[in-house]
Amino acid sequence: MEGTMKTAVMTGISQVEIQERPIPVPADNEVLVKVEYVGICGSDLHYYESGRIGDFVVEPPFVLGHEAGGTVVETGAGVTDLKVGDRVALEPGKTCGHCEHCKEGKYNLCEDVIFFATPPVDGVFQEYVAHEAGLCFKLPENVSTMEGALIEPLAVGMHAANQGGAHLGQTAVVTGAGCIGLCTLLSLRAMGVSKIIVVDVMQKRLDKALELGADYVINGKEEDAVERIRELTGGKGADLGIETAGSQITASQLIRAAKKGAVIVFVGYSATGEMTLPIGMALDKELTFKTVFRYRNIYPMAIEAVAGGKIRIKDIVTDYFELDDIKNALDSCVHNKADIVKGVIKVC
Amino acid sequence: MEGTMKTAVMTGISQVEIQERPIPVPADNEVLVKVEYVGICGSDLHYYESGRIGDFVVEPPFVLGHEAGGTVVETGAGVTDLKVGDRVALEPGKTCGHCEHCKEGKYNLCEDVIFFATPPVDGVFQEYVAHEAGLCFKLPENVSTMEGALIEPLAVGMHAANQGGAHLGQTAVVTGAGCIGLCTLLSLRAMGVSKIIVVDVMQKRLDKALELGADYVINGKEEDAVERIRELTGGKGADLGIETAGSQITASQLIRAAKKGAVIVFVGYSATGEMTLPIGMALDKELTFKTVFRYRNIYPMAIEAVAGGKIRIKDIVTDYFELDDIKNALDSCVHNKADIVKGVIKVC
Amino acid sequence: MEGTMKTAVMTGISQVEIQERPIPVPADNEVLVKVEYVGICGSDLHYYESGRIGDFVVEPPFVLGHEAGGTVVETGAGVTDLKVGDRVALEPGKTCGHCEHCKEGKYNLCEDVIFFATPPVDGVFQEYVAHEAGLCFKLPENVSTMEGALIEPLAVGMHAANQGGAHLGQTAVVTGAGCIGLCTLLSLRAMGVSKIIVVDVMQKRLDKALELGADYVINGKEEDAVERIRELTGGKGADLGIETAGSQITASQLIRAAKKGAVIVFVGYSATGEMTLPIGMALDKELTFKTVFRYRNIYPMAIEAVAGGKIRIKDIVTDYFELDDIKNALDSCVHNKADIVKGVIKVC
Amino acid sequence: MEGTMKTAVMTGISQVEIQERPIPVPADNEVLVKVEYVGICGSDLHYYESGRIGDFVVEPPFVLGHEAGGTVVETGAGVTDLKVGDRVALEPGKTCGHCEHCKEGKYNLCEDVIFFATPPVDGVFQEYVAHEAGLCFKLPENVSTMEGALIEPLAVGMHAANQGGAHLGQTAVVTGAGCIGLCTLLSLRAMGVSKIIVVDVMQKRLDKALELGADYVINGKEEDAVERIRELTGGKGADLGIETAGSQITASQLIRAAKKGAVIVFVGYSATGEMTLPIGMALDKELTFKTVFRYRNIYPMAIEAVAGGKIRIKDIVTDYFELDDIKNALDSCVHNKADIVKGVIKVC
Repeated sequence: MEGTMKTAVMTGISQVEIQERPIPVPADNEVLVKVEYVGICGSDLHYYESGRIGDFVVEPPFVLGHEAGGTVVETGAGVTDLKVGDRVALEPGKTCGHCEHCKEGKYNLCEDVIFFATPPVDGVFQEYVAHEAGLCFKLPENVSTMEGALIEPLAVGMHAANQGGAHLGQTAVVTGAGCIGLCTLLSLRAMGVSKIIVVDVMQKRLDKALELGADYVINGKEEDAVERIRELTGGKGADLGIETAGSQITASQLIRAAKKGAVIVFVGYSATGEMTLPIGMALDKELTFKTVFRYRNIYPMAIEAVAGGKIRIKDIVTDYFELDDIKNALDSCVHNKADIVKGVIKVC
Repeated sequence: MEGTMKTAVMTGISQVEIQERPIPVPADNEVLVKVEYVGICGSDLHYYESGRIGDFVVEPPFVLGHEAGGTVVETGAGVTDLKVGDRVALEPGKTCGHCEHCKEGKYNLCEDVIFFATPPVDGVFQEYVAHEAGLCFKLPENVSTMEGALIEPLAVGMHAANQGGAHLGQTAVVTGAGCIGLCTLLSLRAMGVSKIIVVDVMQKRLDKALELGADYVINGKEEDAVERIRELTGGKGADLGIETAGSQITASQLIRAAKKGAVIVFVGYSATGEMTLPIGMALDKELTFKTVFRYRNIYPMAIEAVAGGKIRIKDIVTDYFELDDIKNALDSCVHNKADIVKGVIKVC
Repeated sequence: MEGTMKTAVMTGISQVEIQERPIPVPADNEVLVKVEYVGICGSDLHYYESGRIGDFVVEPPFVLGHEAGGTVVETGAGVTDLKVGDRVALEPGKTCGHCEHCKEGKYNLCEDVIFFATPPVDGVFQEYVAHEAGLCFKLPENVSTMEGALIEPLAVGMHAANQGGAHLGQTAVVTGAGCIGLCTLLSLRAMGVSKIIVVDVMQKRLDKALELGADYVINGKEEDAVERIRELTGGKGADLGIETAGSQITASQLIRAAKKGAVIVFVGYSATGEMTLPIGMALDKELTFKTVFRYRNIYPMAIEAVAGGKIRIKDIVTDYFELDDIKNALDSCVHNKADIVKGVIKVC
Repeated sequence: MEGTMKTAVMTGISQVEIQERPIPVPADNEVLVKVEYVGICGSDLHYYESGRIGDFVVEPPFVLGHEAGGTVVETGAGVTDLKVGDRVALEPGKTCGHCEHCKEGKYNLCEDVIFFATPPVDGVFQEYVAHEAGLCFKLPENVSTMEGALIEPLAVGMHAANQGGAHLGQTAVVTGAGCIGLCTLLSLRAMGVSKIIVVDVMQKRLDKALELGADYVINGKEEDAVERIRELTGGKGADLGIETAGSQITASQLIRAAKKGAVIVFVGYSATGEMTLPIGMALDKELTFKTVFRYRNIYPMAIEAVAGGKIRIKDIVTDYFELDDIKNALDSCVHNKADIVKGVIKVC
């Protein structure tokens, strides 16, 4: 498809503007996707605000955005599984397929991954993108491209629940009720976890958690979370804890509130990268700690869960913005974390 | 509690009568339970009809019945976790707790198990039973003792689903839609399995499966089950197969209809104990076969699943009978398998 | 490298001759390997004798051989991890890296695999082969290219042991002491299995098993294998059984001789593809059955095990042949199974 | 057996004396064991020096010692598996067999455990002990009661290796080369781990590690351990790390030196119970952390490994003492940690 497209280009810290760029041409194994919705992720906001995450440094011009859903408008010569008109969710990371990690099924650990909106690779706050066909997952009729965009954060939450071995009959605690915390909550519910307790310090997020099916919420500013979890579990402690807040306070709460033999999953990054934790208590309880880096092999099951009505992912969205309004969208999300739980850009 | 109680005593093959027996006295670590509901299991019917299952031979007088729910009416001196008035589901097998299998958490394989209604141990088609307190699981307020009785067959289905590693996003096939097949179906649904296909040859059972949430049913007398499963899975085959019919025909169908790398769980016993299977095809697909012997560590999660509304176990029951009517109950179940999917004895 | 090379071409059933073919040219991601040793596998013999294995039919001219070790003599433009002179073991299957099975780490189940000597793909009974660099595993100094060739069958045995969850302290039974049975034995030993019992009906193979470290051997023609295994395990039965003989008799023996909760691994194909097995007994013991299709992610650990002296793989070889002598080599292996446990072709 | 026995009684902090106490009488399910060897464990020394470990406080008189081997001299009425004259290793913890943790096979987490030398339960620095028969594991002929005593610390190291999923072909790092670190090293070797690197700061311990089969040792005072591990792993990092030093420095080293996807096992307790760790880096590598609390289901496999010559456990012992010399033994071990890697009391 010839022509140009609107692209939201980050030109400096807290600076973004719409520019015209050529529409990309799909390679043989790629499809060209008309991007319809792109979620705004915490990492997008972090790059926008501060220009870096750890060792990844933005060198403008740069395009943010990696949670995309859209419609196939052109297919590469070698593509057989997709056709024009198919609506798809885009898994953002291309991996090599042949390194040790890829061959062991842990492709999220591939050293050669190329991932949307991770410097220096551009993201998808733009009208079109050419992407590997195998990473564009066809959506069933009853799943919209807006929901398709949200498969990405859902995949993180679902991978977290998987890493924790979540299952029927458990009591789980999720600390942090931001987008990933809520996606974790939705995943835990879909996996049959019996009792889900969500801990945060922002009431609006806790209200959202309740709306999405949390059995109990704890406002850490008002209650002793550990005490309350013990009470809610008959003194036994939780079977599973998932830490999405990136705080050593909540991480320690999960250790203290865990049942013997429990699993705790770390998802959130702390500001310094370090955490001081009661490891001696973890030994006494023989806890297991799992961690999460993105996800692997989750898109098909996440799409199935949404299609089957097990997860109503669109309910996590609190705010919609137009692509032309991207500066306001990013600024609003940065400055109003208490109110905007999850924003989505409507591209076209 | 002094006095006598009604007991349904099997006095010979296809012979059963109500007799008065002394109410048992609970030991220190036991409770006395007033039995309210007892499910009629296929194994009860098998013993009733033929006097034996494999090496287990009934020597009358013998009491059948092992799926029981009731209310605690007396507690042994050492019991602290239960009190009079607690409503409970009874796990029927007492295990040693100290053999190799018990210590490894596979207590269902304990050589010294004492299991209700497995010769020579009497069952619970009777008004009272004294049972180890640790095997009497307290029911939450919103779970009835009738549902409590059904936790036992549910535990078999849930263990089967567990053994198969059932999880969110999968397509599973259950062959056989008798009580255990239906309990498996309910368990798979509660675990988030996306698409469940049930195969049987009796239409009433398939109707029941649809009512309980099967996504598709296949009547093996009318359709080629393998062909239909391939069609329903886009040619890929099923991720998980659970065989409850005890037939080598259905077992072979599951192998032929399985996706590469799939898991198949054997639950049903065939008449001869042997099955001729396409093992070469299983190797080509690198299938895993798991088997099920009763269950372990399932009662708490099964009760949670019923209490939380994830499983409506009472919907599997098609027929209720009074204890006094036991002969008719057993005879009806034996002779009318097409209509009576699951019968329950109301004891008092 | 220009020029021609000797190639052993199968021209019909039980017909093979040396022909000259052009030396292949490596693609960018490939290396050209001077083949030094190629093991003769049971599947090579099967194709040679009968022209087919299941649905795979030889259409001559065809080249057999898939167990190869050699030296890199040329590297494709994109190859960085190997250089001329490196000695390598060749993993024979190229996989797509991007299908569902590849992404889940089960690349041995890839539908698009291209595997040496599996019709219509030629094998490596020839002087040179161009192969994907990522599938050519560099050998440490103390591992010869002859041992490199044997990494392939060792990988099958090691995958079998892995699939069975072999570990320190177990008692394992291997039925069948051909090449794969012996490779399994060596793998079990290297994994710390305490007691290994090997069952076969050919004494020479059992002698080889003893030489390679079997703790006990049973000649199934002279002893009741099940009885003897029970005796050797103090009546408990074996923790792990690995069936490499492809016989329902030995498969049934493993079920009967298994401890409750044991794992049995099927590796050998039976002639008909079917086996009649005592599945009822498997249910009573709650056995798990795993199967093996080739292997995955094994080469690095197999090479490490050989390099570290944990496995003396070369000791399985009983007969060496020259490439020019290929007809005699294949005919001898076909007609003298009792004496030739493992033959290897020395190419140059 | 009537009469009295010598008992080493801790009468205060750093005070111990030999007293005469009545020989205990075994209950029906117990045996009376003549204690022959008892290892001196770090926890014994900790109680001796400071009177407490965490919440466990010694109230004198108290008997230390929990690593025992001896000979059965009397059997309780209900004991069938042991007879007078059997030499045994004593697993020190009696568990209930019926709580949630016991039923799930994690009996080391039993809340009601009664464990030798854990206040207020007396230990076995004494001539006789009555102990549950099921916890007295019969030793094969070629395993001495001295080795039997050392099965206890070996079980800790083996459980650590198990928790880490140690297996053939891996590179593992053990930090801390005290008794538990060395037992871990021996276990890793027996499980087929290819390359084992041991890190400590005391040269004598590193020399011992080399003697016991470490492939490489790193003196953390002289080398940058992380740098050296990277070098030894070709830049990839270790597959498995086991932390037995109880130091956040070594724990952090293991995180920094780990390969992506690796497992790290915490065994050692730090002085404060807390550790500050680079959790962000753990997320980037998607590491798993396991912890160790004692062990479960290990004695049989540990005894097999010693009997089969896979582990030469007696080689960890550096110093022997007589029971009468207990005060000197404990004082020496406390004050000379650099030289006494492992001391054992010879009781009689």
